[in-house]
Amino acid sequence: MSNFIEALQRQYPQTRNLSPFINANHQTPWLNDVKRKHERKLCADLAEAIAKSGLKDGMTISFHHHFREGDKVINRVVDTLAQLGFKNLTLASSSLMSCNAPLIEHIRAGVIARIYTSGMRGELADAISHGLMKEPVNIHSHGGRVHLLQSGELKVDVAFLGVPSSDEFGNANGTAGRSRCGSLGYAMVDAQYARKVVVLTESLAPFPNMPASIVQDRVDYVVQVAEVGDPARISVGAARVTSNPRELLIARRAADVIEYSGYFKNGFSIQTGSGAASTACTRFLEDKMRRQNIVASFALGGITGSIVDLHEKGLIEKLLDTQCFDANAAESLARNPNHVEISTTVYANPSVKAACCDQLDVVILSALEIDTDFNVNVITGSDGVMRGASGGHCDVATAANLTIVVAPLIRSRIPTVVRQVTTCVTPGESIDVLVTDHGIAVNPRRPEVAQRLQQAGLPVLSIEALYQRAIELVGEPRAIEFHERIVGVIRYRDGSVIDVVRQVKESDE
Amino acid sequence: MSNFIEALQRQYPQTRNLSPFINANHQTPWLNDVKRKHERKLCADLAEAIAKSGLKDGMTISFHHHFREGDKVINRVVDTLAQLGFKNLTLASSSLMSCNAPLIEHIRAGVIARIYTSGMRGELADAISHGLMKEPVNIHSHGGRVHLLQSGELKVDVAFLGVPSSDEFGNANGTAGRSRCGSLGYAMVDAQYARKVVVLTESLAPFPNMPASIVQDRVDYVVQVAEVGDPARISVGAARVTSNPRELLIARRAADVIEYSGYFKNGFSIQTGSGAASTACTRFLEDKMRRQNIVASFALGGITGSIVDLHEKGLIEKLLDTQCFDANAAESLARNPNHVEISTTVYANPSVKAACCDQLDVVILSALEIDTDFNVNVITGSDGVMRGASGGHCDVATAANLTIVVAPLIRSRIPTVVRQVTTCVTPGESIDVLVTDHGIAVNPRRPEVAQRLQQAGLPVLSIEALYQRAIELVGEPRAIEFHERIVGVIRYRDGSVIDVVRQVKESDE
Repeated sequence: MSNFIEALQRQYPQTRNLSPFINANHQTPWLNDVKRKHERKLCADLAEAIAKSGLKDGMTISFHHHFREGDKVINRVVDTLAQLGFKNLTLASSSLMSCNAPLIEHIRAGVIARIYTSGMRGELADAISHGLMKEPVNIHSHGGRVHLLQSGELKVDVAFLGVPSSDEFGNANGTAGRSRCGSLGYAMVDAQYARKVVVLTESLAPFPNMPASIVQDRVDYVVQVAEVGDPARISVGAARVTSNPRELLIARRAADVIEYSGYFKNGFSIQTGSGAASTACTRFLEDKMRRQNIVASFALGGITGSIVDLHEKGLIEKLLDTQCFDANAAESLARNPNHVEISTTVYANPSVKAACCDQLDVVILSALEIDTDFNVNVITGSDGVMRGASGGHCDVATAANLTIVVAPLIRSRIPTVVRQVTTCVTPGESIDVLVTDHGIAVNPRRPEVAQRLQQAGLPVLSIEALYQRAIELVGEPRAIEFHERIVGVIRYRDGSVIDVVRQVKESDE
Repeated sequence: MSNFIEALQRQYPQTRNLSPFINANHQTPWLNDVKRKHERKLCADLAEAIAKSGLKDGMTISFHHHFREGDKVINRVVDTLAQLGFKNLTLASSSLMSCNAPLIEHIRAGVIARIYTSGMRGELADAISHGLMKEPVNIHSHGGRVHLLQSGELKVDVAFLGVPSSDEFGNANGTAGRSRCGSLGYAMVDAQYARKVVVLTESLAPFPNMPASIVQDRVDYVVQVAEVGDPARISVGAARVTSNPRELLIARRAADVIEYSGYFKNGFSIQTGSGAASTACTRFLEDKMRRQNIVASFALGGITGSIVDLHEKGLIEKLLDTQCFDANAAESLARNPNHVEISTTVYANPSVKAACCDQLDVVILSALEIDTDFNVNVITGSDGVMRGASGGHCDVATAANLTIVVAPLIRSRIPTVVRQVTTCVTPGESIDVLVTDHGIAVNPRRPEVAQRLQQAGLPVLSIEALYQRAIELVGEPRAIEFHERIVGVIRYRDGSVIDVVRQVKESDE
């Protein structure tokens, strides 16, 4: 056999790097063993998968947050890593929730040294806001997270991806099995970028578990576990149908803004998120769409049951879903062929060859604070403590043709409209309209939108007037006291630093 | 704003590479222009796409061959490149067909200097076999092609992917539009690996053209063209239902071999390819499956209408489709949710984290020649001229639990069973059973299979006996005369060189 190789390399010296055939399975030794062919990815337990992944101190681990407050993977994996003696890890979860309070002890013990996340809530957020970590947390948007992965700043060594259903090769989805989270949009990105991918699955489905959201060519190890998440807790903290008259008023006004904005046309597209007012807004929109024979081409982003309802009524043609906000949405993804799962890179990565948010007409977003320059804070509360998430806020705000922020003017006697936001997550240039229960403000950058709304008789004021109204009602709030020390870095979607979060002073300091 | 950046970098020197926020669309300037947001990938014509792709002399271009003999992209793009004056390109098409004869002049003119392909037919293959090219052609398997892409030997600079339907962002599929080829399994790989991806589409669908086989995050440019392929010519040269008694005999015997092989169990899996005997074999299998209440878990690879028929009758649960061999298969892909499109990396790449062929029980393959060591030639004809394709032959042969080769003992008075194959594409160690119209031979490596078939009363002979029978019938064929010069390199799936093809001597030389 070597004769022809020699002849080849003599006749064509450029082939000198080619090697001769050895045997059929030289590259694929597992094919010599029928059992190993099938089981080479399966691990008896998490510890075995961790050992095989080659994880070392100082490396980066990642997770998705599709189960939100019902997640049962993040804490468990970090517990196991702590027991195994790992130290100095970077935790890169797509987001963190109140349920992740047990991470506090692992941060104290040095297991977790750095965090990248879209947001934080509860005790963990409180502890970090008060100085728990030696290095500041990086807060990124959903699109910005993929940008960081693509740029190489965030190099995930091992992704631990909890899924309801996978086969022995790692073909996984969120729509089969017992605990269904629906879209695996965040996990798809980790499967793409992580050096090693461990799938933790509740149910081990027979091969081929296809079509799959995460495909076998991206998966290294598969571990069956007792549970990966409680789907009933996906929607905890998110909005149900509201009966709050103030929220209903804001929702109705937001629907009016959409109707008269110039973007309410057949084939328009929309993203609503999960807030109470925006969910209610879809109900008011339904009436307007029916009356004017308008069908939306697509809804984008996090998908709720109320959006699914419009889809099934034929009022929205396609749902592009990067995250299911409730069980209804998760079930729709399994049932409706035009309810399409998309990864967060396809959703909103600013550095990708194309992001769906670039096609968006209208988005409704929330705000913890918005200032008179329309800058929005969705991360720190009125006490300066982190209690929110960047999410897709700045991604979609800049990409959509009409970006509407809905918020009550006052929350618990604290103004939402302020002179300067505590923390800037989304720059004011990306916000077009603010809808409050005390009136509507249009960014001076969009005079044509202001004119259309005024012509429709909507209560359009300047944002300065809304600010003055808030002060009039509850007075100027006392400034929050911060230390100099920075505990959080707010990364804009392109990776730049748009703001920082400083350590909050204890009330008795 | 720079205040907090300075504070950050003072407090945490490791953040010194982070840059401050500039403006909302610094990274995404197209978002400042509503028209550009939508049209930034669209090119007026192919020449514009080529210019934007940055293609230069000496680079590598790629294509898929899903339209097979009906392809209207490869010749057209290379014509355009020739007109534009490009030289010294490497052509890496997933395969080439008789319809690609116009490439001969572009090879002569130096536009195309090197070729990677699974196979060749017709005038192009004839010319190359007779020494057209200065460098030998690399013949790879379908899985092996992805291995070469993954290993970096094959670096595609620009992929030109013809599709029936795409939107302005490049979300494309093969199941909508006028000229439907079905699965885009080869194209999915090129979209993944190529530095720049140009989608040529017959119909420009409204965004979002999802679910998509090729997703927008992998596409750089979109060009609308008059036609990309003639779906009626996909199955030219492939098998229709045969009424040839010899083929029917072989097909029936192959079905018997499967039945008694030990692998015919509920949940078994199968790949049949497109040959006449293997297509007929599925008909005989259907009866056996019904009688024994056996349902196959999946069929793999190139999918035909006859496999779709079994799927729709409930006899095969899932179809994993890397290439539709006819219009029926293409239509099924659009219609049947368990007819699943897979890329060729997921199908058969030996270096990927998992290939579907590793799960395969039974495969039926063809052969131009098979020798007494069971080595198979599927590339050179009895005259030494290339007239076939490596395809998935060696990939699936080594991966499947039972690899059956079907072939007539004699073709046009030339033996198929020979002492030594003219060209070895698949090593004999990967072949388990040879089924001919003169009897069945089992590789001595599989005595348990031989025993089962003998016990079932099937006509099992040694391959030596089949060889002697062939010689007895038509005599030993005259040896083909070759020059020393090598014109083709046969790459095994792992990239190694398993054989070479030498230049054929003209009959009057």
